[in-house]
Amino acid sequence: MNGSRSRSRPEYIPAHIPDPSYVRILDTTLRDGEQAPGAAMMAEQKLRIARQLAKLGVDVIEAGFPSASQEDFNGVKMIAEEVGSKYDDDGYVPVIVAMCRCNEKDIRTAWEAVKEAKRPRLLPFIATSPIHMEYKLRKTKEEVLQIARSMVAFARSLGCRDIEFGAEDAARSDREFLYQIFGEVIEAGATTLGIGDTVGITMPFEFGKLIADIKDNTPGIEKAIIAVHCHNDLGHATANTIEATRAGARQLEVTVNGIGERAGNAALEEVVMALRCRGDHLLGGLYTGINTKHILKTSKMVEEYSGMHLQPHKAIVGHNAFLHESGIHQDGLLKHRGTYEILSPEDIGYERSKEANMVLGKLSGRQVLKKRLKELGYELKEDEVKSVFQNFKAMAEKKKRVTDVDLKALVSDQVCDVEPIWKLGGLEVTCGTMNFSSTTIELVTMDGTTHVACSVGKGPVDSAFKAVDLIVKEAVKVLEYSPNTVTEGTDATITIHVVICKENAHSATSTLNENTIYPTFSGSGEGVDVVVSSVEAYLSALNKMLHFKQ
Amino acid sequence: MNGSRSRSRPEYIPAHIPDPSYVRILDTTLRDGEQAPGAAMMAEQKLRIARQLAKLGVDVIEAGFPSASQEDFNGVKMIAEEVGSKYDDDGYVPVIVAMCRCNEKDIRTAWEAVKEAKRPRLLPFIATSPIHMEYKLRKTKEEVLQIARSMVAFARSLGCRDIEFGAEDAARSDREFLYQIFGEVIEAGATTLGIGDTVGITMPFEFGKLIADIKDNTPGIEKAIIAVHCHNDLGHATANTIEATRAGARQLEVTVNGIGERAGNAALEEVVMALRCRGDHLLGGLYTGINTKHILKTSKMVEEYSGMHLQPHKAIVGHNAFLHESGIHQDGLLKHRGTYEILSPEDIGYERSKEANMVLGKLSGRQVLKKRLKELGYELKEDEVKSVFQNFKAMAEKKKRVTDVDLKALVSDQVCDVEPIWKLGGLEVTCGTMNFSSTTIELVTMDGTTHVACSVGKGPVDSAFKAVDLIVKEAVKVLEYSPNTVTEGTDATITIHVVICKENAHSATSTLNENTIYPTFSGSGEGVDVVVSSVEAYLSALNKMLHFKQ
Repeated sequence: MNGSRSRSRPEYIPAHIPDPSYVRILDTTLRDGEQAPGAAMMAEQKLRIARQLAKLGVDVIEAGFPSASQEDFNGVKMIAEEVGSKYDDDGYVPVIVAMCRCNEKDIRTAWEAVKEAKRPRLLPFIATSPIHMEYKLRKTKEEVLQIARSMVAFARSLGCRDIEFGAEDAARSDREFLYQIFGEVIEAGATTLGIGDTVGITMPFEFGKLIADIKDNTPGIEKAIIAVHCHNDLGHATANTIEATRAGARQLEVTVNGIGERAGNAALEEVVMALRCRGDHLLGGLYTGINTKHILKTSKMVEEYSGMHLQPHKAIVGHNAFLHESGIHQDGLLKHRGTYEILSPEDIGYERSKEANMVLGKLSGRQVLKKRLKELGYELKEDEVKSVFQNFKAMAEKKKRVTDVDLKALVSDQVCDVEPIWKLGGLEVTCGTMNFSSTTIELVTMDGTTHVACSVGKGPVDSAFKAVDLIVKEAVKVLEYSPNTVTEGTDATITIHVVICKENAHSATSTLNENTIYPTFSGSGEGVDVVVSSVEAYLSALNKMLHFKQ
Repeated sequence: MNGSRSRSRPEYIPAHIPDPSYVRILDTTLRDGEQAPGAAMMAEQKLRIARQLAKLGVDVIEAGFPSASQEDFNGVKMIAEEVGSKYDDDGYVPVIVAMCRCNEKDIRTAWEAVKEAKRPRLLPFIATSPIHMEYKLRKTKEEVLQIARSMVAFARSLGCRDIEFGAEDAARSDREFLYQIFGEVIEAGATTLGIGDTVGITMPFEFGKLIADIKDNTPGIEKAIIAVHCHNDLGHATANTIEATRAGARQLEVTVNGIGERAGNAALEEVVMALRCRGDHLLGGLYTGINTKHILKTSKMVEEYSGMHLQPHKAIVGHNAFLHESGIHQDGLLKHRGTYEILSPEDIGYERSKEANMVLGKLSGRQVLKKRLKELGYELKEDEVKSVFQNFKAMAEKKKRVTDVDLKALVSDQVCDVEPIWKLGGLEVTCGTMNFSSTTIELVTMDGTTHVACSVGKGPVDSAFKAVDLIVKEAVKVLEYSPNTVTEGTDATITIHVVICKENAHSATSTLNENTIYPTFSGSGEGVDVVVSSVEAYLSALNKMLHFKQ
């Protein structure tokens, strides 16, 4: 298996899929995903996501809810006119869908927004469960039935040939009522039936049975595609979605990273990779048209634009999803990837070497550490490895993951856990609104000699570091200058962390794409004076660098 | 339903549960959870989590892997001797389990660690799948069988009466081999059989079938409890775990927040709340002994200690899990909670008013805003609400969630979007290693009058703020002082954000537990001089406060 589509995508016909094994993916990141508290995105961001979804190859993009606001309307229209208007060489262009409530105004607005797409679709929805009809809609079954039928017909009358009727809270609806309303909307022109587990309450066997029953009992069901839309309130969204395919669903409604109202929706990457991993054998040959190599990039884009940061153990796309920490697992992987890996990171778009996904922690052995140090560019002697390993174990025992940056620092410390070459004697800084700052500094060497220098700079920290540089005379690059994030009051202790490397350090790129190999050195300082703390952090890092050089 | 246990917990007998509807929960946060890359915890933290797990009422605590290191051994021993040694009034004490590989040394070490518990259990495990046996263990089926049988007998010989035999990668193992090995370990004294979907590959119907087959075909199965241990690589861990209960599993192995190797394990909170929500009707009366009101607190503790931060849409315990943003959903909720809520936040330990879980965003209407403002303590006139609503919509349209702090700032800005009362004229600061800093500052009023003052302070920012205070003469409390987190180089622009309130502000507590009602004011400043930027941020916030006062 490679990361591209395994089979060709069948021709798009709204109410029929020529290959019964093909499963359509509808992505609703831009509509249901954006409903996640705090996930509102700007029109330009949505457009970029839509472009990326087209690269990913989703069959259908639910682009928004045009009646919600003018901005939403514009966003959907822009997507329809740009992303929905270009066929690729294989004749693929995503269907662009606009959601609308079951009233003429909403439907007309939605149609205005999507009609310029090559494949426009409307998605009028209404709730079908007793609790929603009684308390939210305050309508009888008969009224809801009549509204659904007439609004689908109205959508059709505008010239729309691709209509998905959405039954909100279908999972809690009366079976017979669902058969009836679905039968009638098919007759009125609906081409897809959206079955929502809006509150995320069902379990797979139960949801699969619902889909099977609808397939068996809805009049005219052969003239429509069954779609499912699952929420994750009880952690079952992905499993319900996959189970529905076994019962006949052929359009799966998902969001990138699983974002959405409350606990979110079924996650595109989980549903797609589950089908990819198990579709062939376990699920009788089911497949999608998704180019899985674009999953990682899409996930990162949605994470950034929506501000919905993923937990490290998020399946498929979380930072840890392909990482292995325990010694037993790492040992197994070195012997055979398949012992603990059912998907490879490359499938979803990672480019990295085979061993890169082992995390060093207290359970890791010396061979794994040695291998990693080598990958990072360190050729250490056996006794040096041994000594780094001891410090590594001590660090790992104390806390958390040992990252590559930590490892570099460990190697550096290894060679320089000795008396500092330069110590801070004293410091005087002036700054303010003169647009420059000056620092006078005294540094003391190991033998007690004092050196004094003075420098101007753009701010107090800049002038102080420059004054240090005048004495130490090393070409240094500050890679990271980070104060701790939040304090209460202004007289609290502030911690500063500084990471440096030699300016123009030889930066050979390793096999690991994102790693540049050069020794980096870090230092911390803390106190009530932000400038003094910064200088202490800087000196600490500098001393390590100088020892390393020796 | 309330948050406490719905039925009493049956007596603990290792190999038998007197009530066939009772499902045991084994929590492995401290063992498999800690294997999550980067989640290593300190012994003291683990002990605290174990205490909390006992409050939560988990039946079994898998406390660690004593052979991994001395620290792990000590951690397990401490938990066994403290948390595992106290019966509560109902006769409950958690079983304490130590994992061990199938060799005498591991088993002996594990037994030393747990034997002081009232209910100690050993968990020797070995892989049973062809790929693991061939590549990792390099052993034949017969060898594995012999090892399993003899090591369970060895554990028994040490005096252990409660033995769980774990079949690693059982989901990919040969059925007949599983029946055989399980049959033999039961005979050798195993009381629980752990069935691992170690790589997280199965789908619910498939995993349920595996459990049913094991139940139907394993000799002597009536003398043991079937346990399942599912991983989440394809997003199916929770669903597989629940489905297994339908097939006869009666011990569910989970972790708090679902942390664990790679994509983690089935999440305790999802499994428990799914059983609570659906156990009675859908699942034939299944129930657990978990006191769900402790879920939230346990989740936060594990999040903090493990450093595994949850995504906002994490089911049950994510920040958004009970939040509703879209106007349609909020409208529904105001009419009837059940329209969009199947669990109530109070069930897992939230204490908050019914409407608190609506998030204000661009889809929210004016009534919801007004209600929230009132909850926050603002009694605004109708035209003021209208005007705040306009600014609120503009803010919401641009980006992200509008939080309570934003709302407070909006109300404040509302009243003070006018010329600043105090402007910065000039500033001169000296600081350094003298242990104090001094600032001379010039502020200019609206009519052009200048005021100069000078103050010492503990650091440059402190002295500068104090100099401002000398002129402005307001009792101000700095609630938050936050520089932006990370910059490259030291001459880059730094942004400072300051939040203040009046010192001794009347702090009536609202019905919402965590909210204190007093107006807060925020300001930002940016530039290359960290002190000047801080003063600008402070003045901006101060000006708002002074206008609000007028």
